[in-house]
Amino acid sequence: MDGASRIHFGERQIEMAHGAGGKATRRLVDGLFVPLLFESTPECLGDAAHVQMDGVRLAMTTDSFVVTPLRFPGGSIGELAVNGTVNDLAVSGARAEAMVVTFVLEAGLPADVLEAEVRAMGQAARAAGVTIVGGDTKVVEHGKTDQMYITTSAVGRLLPGVTLGPRAVRPGDRILLSGPIGDHGITILLARGELDLEADLRSDTRSVLPLVEAIAKVAAADLRWMRDPTRGGVATSLNELALDCGLGICLSEERVPVRDEVRGACELLGLDPLHIANEGQFLVVVAPGSADRALEALRAAPGGAGAAMIGEVRQQPAACVLVETSYSGSRIVDMLVGDPLPRIC
Amino acid sequence: MDGASRIHFGERQIEMAHGAGGKATRRLVDGLFVPLLFESTPECLGDAAHVQMDGVRLAMTTDSFVVTPLRFPGGSIGELAVNGTVNDLAVSGARAEAMVVTFVLEAGLPADVLEAEVRAMGQAARAAGVTIVGGDTKVVEHGKTDQMYITTSAVGRLLPGVTLGPRAVRPGDRILLSGPIGDHGITILLARGELDLEADLRSDTRSVLPLVEAIAKVAAADLRWMRDPTRGGVATSLNELALDCGLGICLSEERVPVRDEVRGACELLGLDPLHIANEGQFLVVVAPGSADRALEALRAAPGGAGAAMIGEVRQQPAACVLVETSYSGSRIVDMLVGDPLPRIC
Repeated sequence: MDGASRIHFGERQIEMAHGAGGKATRRLVDGLFVPLLFESTPECLGDAAHVQMDGVRLAMTTDSFVVTPLRFPGGSIGELAVNGTVNDLAVSGARAEAMVVTFVLEAGLPADVLEAEVRAMGQAARAAGVTIVGGDTKVVEHGKTDQMYITTSAVGRLLPGVTLGPRAVRPGDRILLSGPIGDHGITILLARGELDLEADLRSDTRSVLPLVEAIAKVAAADLRWMRDPTRGGVATSLNELALDCGLGICLSEERVPVRDEVRGACELLGLDPLHIANEGQFLVVVAPGSADRALEALRAAPGGAGAAMIGEVRQQPAACVLVETSYSGSRIVDMLVGDPLPRIC
Repeated sequence: MDGASRIHFGERQIEMAHGAGGKATRRLVDGLFVPLLFESTPECLGDAAHVQMDGVRLAMTTDSFVVTPLRFPGGSIGELAVNGTVNDLAVSGARAEAMVVTFVLEAGLPADVLEAEVRAMGQAARAAGVTIVGGDTKVVEHGKTDQMYITTSAVGRLLPGVTLGPRAVRPGDRILLSGPIGDHGITILLARGELDLEADLRSDTRSVLPLVEAIAKVAAADLRWMRDPTRGGVATSLNELALDCGLGICLSEERVPVRDEVRGACELLGLDPLHIANEGQFLVVVAPGSADRALEALRAAPGGAGAAMIGEVRQQPAACVLVETSYSGSRIVDMLVGDPLPRIC
């Protein structure tokens, strides 16, 4: 039984949207990867898997990075490749310990371009406290890759007392966000120079592990769920949560921190900041009794001053994300559909 | 201190040879990756790293796969991606337990091409006994990748009683090879159809774990070193061993199993079968007292009938690989230089 009978991916070809982290990605993952690769359907596809080896539970994750341009205000592909994977482990409740990396390089790539990214990876790894223990390099003909693609994979140790999952989420739980959203996606868009728009904006890329540890220190047992809203943004992450727990995720729009530059660019482009990718923020669902303490700990930690309580979990609307606007209206916000900003990580 | 002072990679740009696994790859790894990514120079860069987590030692490895064509006689990129990583762990003395996978896909890729590879990965994983626990998908614009690149990473459990490393190798140790060499590289070359040559040849791609376990069962404590001679072939793997242990690796050419089809193609192309990639073979250095028993166990295991004792370790020529030919001559065989067969894995 190789799962073939459970395949339900009816599309004829792969489109950019299948890599955008939204609805199309979910169709590809649920329709093709889960039936053929996983022996049983994982309860929920989180950012990292937890596996048991010789009586020790560890977390494991992987990501490929294809961002363009390679360098952008606030970061670069190498730094992003390390922190993205550190963050996937962090929001699964684990501290990255050992990392392996691979490069797919284009023949003709200037050596100093590679050196800059390798240097950025080393620095990011030291800053995040993860040890790079091995790797692999492939070179393809000029034009068969876009300068370089990097893949990082890591294993990590679980943070004591933290058990996360959508099944743990209850009505009344509060939703915290670590800081302003959309900086990464809009920075990448501007860095491509395709828009006649300038803004003093930097990617938010960073390791969120110190913030996760700060919150775990004061509220470990009351943390229910965490996620870093990268591709597809906050709206996609919260829609996945809503589907997985079957509850309503209710946001107060005015409480969601968004910089003016991001809001302005989104208005011009007809995009919703809730759909824009972040690389240094995370969402936390926490039991109501610990919410204030958790928010305080976040805000007191370096880089956490912009954290906010942005909403709560309710029974209704079931399996949906509802955004209450400042004019006492409300709207349902769906996952990202299509891919307005390709290759942002 | 970010290792910048130890950088010694003087080349101006990346060439295909830097991904070929031979001399250029070693210059890139030693000159750039080791100084910038690794906190201390690893004693020797094996196929997998062994890391300690919560008192448990585990093995970890990663590889990217860019083989072209995607499908070839005997295998395909998906199957290769799983078995290549299973094999890297196996020859480090470990059994792959949990694997994560990433895809970089080209927009426009037919869904059935992807489905075939995902299916091949699932089948290979089940056959090798490794569980795929997570993954990631990126999509890039048509032409920014060559259909698909796959990266696999895995953690594994160490086989009991097996401790491997070039430092353990002693003069008098015997060198075993699991079967005929060059099948994979020549199969890929022929599958590209660039040569007016046909041969009834299949890639040797497979999991070597059952063979490694068979040999570990009878000679665990006497196993010194193992390696799967992929890119760069047997000559490159053994040159790395010679450099790392400082001893002479002496092969008897007539004992090295090579199929007629591979020998013929190599003669036509001016290639040495010792430099051609394999995906389902491995080299073992074993203490002399256990060599016959180990060879017997290999030959008795399914798929091991072609195994052979191909040489021994001597004091001289130090740090070199010497091949004794059937005409009582001998020649020094170096690592692969350049890249006669790009993108074979």
